[in-house]
Amino acid sequence: MSGTFISFEGPDGAGKTSALKAITAQITPLLGDRLTITREPGGNPISESIRAVILDRKNTAMDYRTEALLYAAARRQHLAETILPALAADQLVLCDRYVDSSVAYQGAGRQIGEQAVEEMNRFATDGLLPELTIYFDVPAEVGLQRIQAHRQPDKVDRLDVEQTAFHDRVRAAYLRLQAAHPDRIKLIDATQSPDQVVQESLALIKQTARRYF
Amino acid sequence: MSGTFISFEGPDGAGKTSALKAITAQITPLLGDRLTITREPGGNPISESIRAVILDRKNTAMDYRTEALLYAAARRQHLAETILPALAADQLVLCDRYVDSSVAYQGAGRQIGEQAVEEMNRFATDGLLPELTIYFDVPAEVGLQRIQAHRQPDKVDRLDVEQTAFHDRVRAAYLRLQAAHPDRIKLIDATQSPDQVVQESLALIKQTARRYF
Repeated sequence: MSGTFISFEGPDGAGKTSALKAITAQITPLLGDRLTITREPGGNPISESIRAVILDRKNTAMDYRTEALLYAAARRQHLAETILPALAADQLVLCDRYVDSSVAYQGAGRQIGEQAVEEMNRFATDGLLPELTIYFDVPAEVGLQRIQAHRQPDKVDRLDVEQTAFHDRVRAAYLRLQAAHPDRIKLIDATQSPDQVVQESLALIKQTARRYF
Repeated sequence: MSGTFISFEGPDGAGKTSALKAITAQITPLLGDRLTITREPGGNPISESIRAVILDRKNTAMDYRTEALLYAAARRQHLAETILPALAADQLVLCDRYVDSSVAYQGAGRQIGEQAVEEMNRFATDGLLPELTIYFDVPAEVGLQRIQAHRQPDKVDRLDVEQTAFHDRVRAAYLRLQAAHPDRIKLIDATQSPDQVVQESLALIKQTARRYF
């Protein structure tokens, strides 16, 4: 593995996806085919099939550990089919969500336990972590309000039928992760203007992946 | 949890399924609704959907760790929907395959590593192991010959497209598991006559689950 792996993390509504779009527009002309921008499940047929099982609204009987294992399985396949080949080809890989999402959402949000979820995901990733993780921090209420504002009523899936308490636990877990891994995980205040968030992200990316720029 | 949990393990072609049928016929009249006979994935819609992803012959690009995580996810859901409720209702639960299958097939057969697969499955089971595991031991060649003899050509799925070396590794792993957990795992020589195998199994079941008989 010789490329550089960077992940983007944060609660729903933190603006990760919009920021990644703006970042992509800015750096694609510079990096060309030395860049891979991806997100879980990553578009491969196996991970998409797994995702369909997770998000099927009929599956209300899904146990939380089953759900965590399915996310890990989709992550593994995305790693094997997309991330590892890109890193082997010396590319810069920007990935929307990775292991920290499971620790925050399944470990803390679903209350399975952050350490148990982290250890299980070590099996999925064989220990591969990003060199840099950019964490978009917003209070739970701000994130939830942004989701409500943008969401079409018919696009609400099972995951969104949750309480504010859930999102508070998710944010607290992200903050704990950042405190535990300050060298890897860098926090950005995502209540700032979208342009500020993009500029701060770009600065962090260029610092970690200097040789690509 | 107050019931008794017994699993059946062994390589393909060891005769587990036929033996379980004969055992079921003999003990159902005695135990009635105090008995649950089940097998992974267990007939619940979520585990069946997961199983369909694993066995889809189109999915030749499936990474072995993805496969192991999917088996663990299906196991978890079967545990949550079938085994745990039956144990809570004080039933005797006989289950065709459980964690040892993953350690043998994914850990040793696929060469992911037996310990890694065992630890990841501890997440899936939350540490729940059977009180008794009956392991049907046959040499790899005997098992494979029996499969060939019974199989319809159109029923060959992706799992069966494997080599004898794979099945040798699986058997070696089962023997290591038995040696490591002699109190839980009892070996039966499954090259004996079907009737002998059933009688030995029944003796072990009655010894562990005496209060049901």
